[in-house]
Amino acid sequence: MSAKQAIMLLSGGLDSATTLALAKKEGFDCFALSFRYGQRHSREIESAKKVAAAASVLGHRIVDIDLAQFGGSALTDSAIDVPKDRAGLENESAIPLTYVPARNTVFLSYALAWAEVLGVFDIFIGVNSTDYSGYPDCRAEFIAAFEKMANLATAAAVEGKGKYKIRTPIIEMTKAEIIKAGTAAGVDYSLTHSCYDPDEKGRSCGRCDSCRLRLRGFAQAGLKDPIEYV
Amino acid sequence: MSAKQAIMLLSGGLDSATTLALAKKEGFDCFALSFRYGQRHSREIESAKKVAAAASVLGHRIVDIDLAQFGGSALTDSAIDVPKDRAGLENESAIPLTYVPARNTVFLSYALAWAEVLGVFDIFIGVNSTDYSGYPDCRAEFIAAFEKMANLATAAAVEGKGKYKIRTPIIEMTKAEIIKAGTAAGVDYSLTHSCYDPDEKGRSCGRCDSCRLRLRGFAQAGLKDPIEYV
Repeated sequence: MSAKQAIMLLSGGLDSATTLALAKKEGFDCFALSFRYGQRHSREIESAKKVAAAASVLGHRIVDIDLAQFGGSALTDSAIDVPKDRAGLENESAIPLTYVPARNTVFLSYALAWAEVLGVFDIFIGVNSTDYSGYPDCRAEFIAAFEKMANLATAAAVEGKGKYKIRTPIIEMTKAEIIKAGTAAGVDYSLTHSCYDPDEKGRSCGRCDSCRLRLRGFAQAGLKDPIEYV
Repeated sequence: MSAKQAIMLLSGGLDSATTLALAKKEGFDCFALSFRYGQRHSREIESAKKVAAAASVLGHRIVDIDLAQFGGSALTDSAIDVPKDRAGLENESAIPLTYVPARNTVFLSYALAWAEVLGVFDIFIGVNSTDYSGYPDCRAEFIAAFEKMANLATAAAVEGKGKYKIRTPIIEMTKAEIIKAGTAAGVDYSLTHSCYDPDEKGRSCGRCDSCRLRLRGFAQAGLKDPIEYV
């Protein structure tokens, strides 16, 4: 019996590594898709390669995209500092400076293009709205709207060859639940990278929102984070 | 009184040049956005620059994107021939080989990213579903679905700073109507390029779907096409 096939958006972070493992557990063989989008933490890409290799994906494409030229985010614009030691992590009213305009929209659009060429109709993305950092494009209502649009945008869907499904297995999990589920599914978290602002040696800062969410998740899961911090 | 501002997706073709002129007529000052997406007819980009300059746009960004690496289209994949002299142009049941998977989805996603950074909420795109070539992402229902998604995807919309509007002034026009409207609005069609398969000197083939739609449009409008054909 041949496995189902899917596209997996793989950042190299903890969430997408877990999502990939859960997709495999659901019986999907995955094509991994990563992006160099001018992010400061390009170490992510090296992690994505390792995670993809460890999961024996069917293929891994790394696409260069040009979001940095638009600016507007601390992740892509060197004129904006990455926020550290924010007082709170959740339920902040303001969307943080690390928000990259329309990032998941752009990423999913590329995934859709590749899916259509491959004849694949399932796209996995490791978005998470529970322990999220305030990003609007990590919410279920955004994902549902994208899926609807995808099924109107593409020849494959319009000709009735299939129906696109954007799959988000971790969207309602807490970070601790994600780490537990991934650990049970065999994810090696030492391969992953989360920090928005690593040092020259690639060590995580431990103080940006992403590090703090990660560290708190491991603590709440009762597990030790295997990566190196400054 | 300061003019309203908008993003204009500018391909260098007849439709987007007309759309830009109509946007200006509606009182919008435009930022033009073009793409090098591995299309064979990169002469389009040269036309886009000329059209943008002639319209005195506020700025013009040309973004390199990597759709060609996915393949699957005669416009980006040199292994697939551009169809010539097709029997019919409209009401073909099959979506043609010149369809580029998810192209307008990707283009609009970039436009959305730039719009959000600029604080602009209007995006113009010269899609046309009447004299269209069978592309699903040129239809009003796709545009409506994208617009809905955009308003869920972005911090600017979610925070209530504005509501994105994807504007498609030529969507229901015939090619002849587009050419008449553009001529009335002062478009210099000698600057535009439509051919999918120009020769080395940049001259249009006259035989691909795009050339045939263009030539028929000028004929029906009772006007002479000012560009050079082989």
